[in-house]
Amino acid sequence: MTHDTPSPIALAQSLIRCPSVTPEEGGALALLENVLGQAGFSVERPVFSEPGMPDIENLYARIGTGSPCLLFAGHTDVVPTGETSAWTHDPFSGEIADGRLYGRGAVDMKGSIACKLAATLAFLRERPDFGGSIAFLITGDEEGPAINGTVKLLAWARDRGERFDHCLLGEPTNPSRLGEMIKIGRRGSLTGTITVHGRQGHVAYPHRAENPIPGLLRLCSGLIVDPLDDGTAHFDASNLEFTTIDVGNPATNVIPASAKAVFNIRFNEGWSAESLGAEIRRRLDASAGNIVRFSLDLQPSNAPAFLTQPDAFVDVVAGAIEAETGLKPTLSTTGGTSDARFIKDCCPVIEFGLVGETMHQIDECVAVADLEQLTAIYRRVLDAYFPSSSA
Amino acid sequence: MTHDTPSPIALAQSLIRCPSVTPEEGGALALLENVLGQAGFSVERPVFSEPGMPDIENLYARIGTGSPCLLFAGHTDVVPTGETSAWTHDPFSGEIADGRLYGRGAVDMKGSIACKLAATLAFLRERPDFGGSIAFLITGDEEGPAINGTVKLLAWARDRGERFDHCLLGEPTNPSRLGEMIKIGRRGSLTGTITVHGRQGHVAYPHRAENPIPGLLRLCSGLIVDPLDDGTAHFDASNLEFTTIDVGNPATNVIPASAKAVFNIRFNEGWSAESLGAEIRRRLDASAGNIVRFSLDLQPSNAPAFLTQPDAFVDVVAGAIEAETGLKPTLSTTGGTSDARFIKDCCPVIEFGLVGETMHQIDECVAVADLEQLTAIYRRVLDAYFPSSSA
Ligand SMILES: [Zn+2]
Ligand SMILES: [Zn+2]
Repeated sequence: MTHDTPSPIALAQSLIRCPSVTPEEGGALALLENVLGQAGFSVERPVFSEPGMPDIENLYARIGTGSPCLLFAGHTDVVPTGETSAWTHDPFSGEIADGRLYGRGAVDMKGSIACKLAATLAFLRERPDFGGSIAFLITGDEEGPAINGTVKLLAWARDRGERFDHCLLGEPTNPSRLGEMIKIGRRGSLTGTITVHGRQGHVAYPHRAENPIPGLLRLCSGLIVDPLDDGTAHFDASNLEFTTIDVGNPATNVIPASAKAVFNIRFNEGWSAESLGAEIRRRLDASAGNIVRFSLDLQPSNAPAFLTQPDAFVDVVAGAIEAETGLKPTLSTTGGTSDARFIKDCCPVIEFGLVGETMHQIDECVAVADLEQLTAIYRRVLDAYFPSSSA
Repeated sequence: MTHDTPSPIALAQSLIRCPSVTPEEGGALALLENVLGQAGFSVERPVFSEPGMPDIENLYARIGTGSPCLLFAGHTDVVPTGETSAWTHDPFSGEIADGRLYGRGAVDMKGSIACKLAATLAFLRERPDFGGSIAFLITGDEEGPAINGTVKLLAWARDRGERFDHCLLGEPTNPSRLGEMIKIGRRGSLTGTITVHGRQGHVAYPHRAENPIPGLLRLCSGLIVDPLDDGTAHFDASNLEFTTIDVGNPATNVIPASAKAVFNIRFNEGWSAESLGAEIRRRLDASAGNIVRFSLDLQPSNAPAFLTQPDAFVDVVAGAIEAETGLKPTLSTTGGTSDARFIKDCCPVIEFGLVGETMHQIDECVAVADLEQLTAIYRRVLDAYFPSSSA
């Protein structure tokens, strides 16, 4: 019955063959436009700009006007390949070897877009009058600065009156086996710089100088001596990592004038960027006392912690996964940030995609069997989300 | 009686007018050669080379063949002027204003060379048959890498059979007033780099990475928690300063692979570079335990701590100072390193020169009265070191 709908494997290969390294469209969105258009979607290709940045192409497609509306979100842009010669198979050739499809974007996330597409086309072939709506919101700027991508695309859609009931984002969520993990939220991210101010001088005359480095050691040590929290029901403990310390003094006989450290915190729903910034400042003040002169610069954070409360939609997705794989997926909030942090302001969003092990690496690849199984899972989601009235 | 010997002020002006910023000779050694030659010294101008470095001119002069031999050591090279326009008087014009002679090298150390020269010429005029020997060992590479300077010049002199009984080095030794301070030794200097090795990764997955920065904080903090020593009779406590910490990671979402800190220690006679290096390693090992993987790189140190035991020669110099200034000079070992660390292997060496306040600064200058007084002090040293047999 679905003989003439495209296979997810062929679609994934076609997408991988589009060299869509951010900010290049590479033909990937044109391919989606063509396939979705033929299936009856109305397709838009908004381009967003920002001074000093390359224009970014995006895609929005919708079929149906009824409720509910299920949103499939994702991105076709990919990270750079790194040293091409280090790849076993050309990163844009989409070759299959030993049951695995190789290429940049295979798991992050052209593979899961191909699965959604294949599942949707098959669903529409059987249930053309399903009564609801299905939308695709695909950006070309997720791996880049994410300025001209999902944020603007959501605002653009809202301005057109588009409303969504639930979103399924196709990021690779499984650590090692398809079906292990759904993401129902993400930790927030906060970056800050601590600068300790001293007074330059000669190492032989330390009493005439003021070395900022011992003060920085003290402040940094004081910041990590106690954990920020113990985690919550759905979140790990918040975690601070120092990403760099830099003084940049090449002279071994000179005491430097200042020293700085940069940290990044991945924080859970117990904090906002504001409350966390205040806690950091409180800890630094306590360590500094009247002795260490410092300043703290917090980067404006566009990555809050968020949680999509487990509900019927999560049950639909988890049920589809269990039916296909036999696994009960963990409801997780681990890992990095994703565009879900923007989508959650429009509608409940959860994430389920392929196995992330090889993402962003040399020889990124996906098991062909996983593509088939993920297509079947997405198909079960559609079937459950839009139950046929005859059922 | 000394009417027609040159004044130290005129000599100092002439030397300052030679633009002898390391490695340039600038005419300064030629001037000394001329003046010393006319006074009866045999003068040599050895040039030393090193692959990849500019050739450096030096000067060695001696008068007399008898014992004892007093060595006047010094350097005519000067540090760069910095922003010339910031100087009140051109740094190479040798102008006198309000009783002060301005110019690069005024106190470090063309001024004291001029005083030694004036004192020696006056002494020789009165005591041509003084019976001993006076030598000048003047390098053009003290402020630079010090590779083609005093070290090679001393070896060159030793190979010629030159032997010295005592050396008076003319570095600026007085913090604020002429006569305050003789240096009878110098602290040693040891520089090292601590590198903590971790494993790079994404901040969102810290369990897959190993952040080297907390380990570096721990090692650096552990290094300075206890003082190295309490000082000795003639030396301050040894002191460690961190001069830089560098990771150089621009990505705020990446845990870096390694982190390094550089320290410099000014140490007293209680340590050799070897024993101090061993103590540093012991402290780092204790802080690291089995947890922190690190390496320690100690730069080969050519700056040992040394002390010239106070003896009759120190009494001669201190007596001359007290007779002229009324001050009992402190016998000190503070401050940076100097070429005395090389000379001490040839003969006992002490240092006495001008007031160092303005050395290496914009508007380096010396009180004209100080030049006259220092000349008188050096003259008293010569008179006492070579007592006339009729006395
Ligand atoms: Zn992605
Ligand atoms: Zn000097």
